[in-house]
Amino acid sequence: MRCKSCESCFQDYYADTCKQCHEHHKAKVAFLGATHPASFSDVVLFASDDEASGPVPAHKAVLVSRSPVFRAMFENEMEESLSGTIKIGEVSNRTLGAFVNYLYTAEVRLDQQFSCFLFVMAEKYQVQHLKDYCQKFLVANLNWDNSLSTYTLAHRHNAKQIIDAALIVITDNMDKLTSGKEYAKLKEKDPLSLQTFFIFLCAHGFFYVLQ
Amino acid sequence: MRCKSCESCFQDYYADTCKQCHEHHKAKVAFLGATHPASFSDVVLFASDDEASGPVPAHKAVLVSRSPVFRAMFENEMEESLSGTIKIGEVSNRTLGAFVNYLYTAEVRLDQQFSCFLFVMAEKYQVQHLKDYCQKFLVANLNWDNSLSTYTLAHRHNAKQIIDAALIVITDNMDKLTSGKEYAKLKEKDPLSLQTFFIFLCAHGFFYVLQ
Repeated sequence: MRCKSCESCFQDYYADTCKQCHEHHKAKVAFLGATHPASFSDVVLFASDDEASGPVPAHKAVLVSRSPVFRAMFENEMEESLSGTIKIGEVSNRTLGAFVNYLYTAEVRLDQQFSCFLFVMAEKYQVQHLKDYCQKFLVANLNWDNSLSTYTLAHRHNAKQIIDAALIVITDNMDKLTSGKEYAKLKEKDPLSLQTFFIFLCAHGFFYVLQ
Repeated sequence: MRCKSCESCFQDYYADTCKQCHEHHKAKVAFLGATHPASFSDVVLFASDDEASGPVPAHKAVLVSRSPVFRAMFENEMEESLSGTIKIGEVSNRTLGAFVNYLYTAEVRLDQQFSCFLFVMAEKYQVQHLKDYCQKFLVANLNWDNSLSTYTLAHRHNAKQIIDAALIVITDNMDKLTSGKEYAKLKEKDPLSLQTFFIFLCAHGFFYVLQ
């Protein structure tokens, strides 16, 4: 049997929602996700490092309810709260727009690179729902080609679920990986992360000669 | 097999959502429904006919996205939009509070009377999602005891689905109904509605002698 939401096959014993309830939940998501960020907004966000950046309008009430970081920012009347402008560093305008849109709709179309960017934003602003969503995407789309960069990202943000999944792919493809371009690039750009990775591998019983 | 959402039994061919997607949809509803009406609100609603009424805070952006009536009110800069206070007549403070809460969470605990009050609010402010929800509740809870009053409400608001369901219950229980208190009360309070009802019955082939 096929699930209408994710299109994957499932055994009957996995199915636990009737058609009516499924439609009811979908309608609720559409109803609740209809608020538009630009409608009567009381705050704007800027991607401060992106020259092409335009203002991304939003509502304090929505930001506060989705992120404990925004909650602290606004409830403690920090500068951002008083000015009504929040500058967000180290992010592109496209990522910021998608991040804010997610806070309103719980929807985003991910690809490998975009899921990394949004994972970092979700981690920074502690939006657990988006973090889980990106995490699932990254784990489901792991392959030997992206395993090292995904591992590095996960290691930096202490995402155990991704680390574990990436390690399995990496140890299964060690020979291919250490002779590839990505490994050479990582060795040059982020040697500390690679070193920690090899120490981790040794500690868990995978013995490998450092290149 | 039992549906985890509504607790009703369903045949396997009705099930079309896997466990993971069901949890995913539920989490989305919780994520999107977390905005609190009182957090950084920019408008308050009052039940003007209820002496016990206190202010019910809300956000223009949320009201506008859920109801075309509020959209017209705020986008045309009517008095309510400028003053930030909306007076709502013919409603209790409790109903108004539950109505606003529904706009934020898509959740409400209904009983027979409350579903009638909220149905009227949903109709007045054209909140189709809540109207459908109350309609389903009223149809599911129809019995000969409440069928006449439910029919009268539905007739006043042209709710075809409820009218059809109530008519079936009424015609099946005509003898009991016309000798009951509710019928006598309705005949006194709303004779026009009863008259239309009997004309409707005759037009549809149910012949009955007017009492």
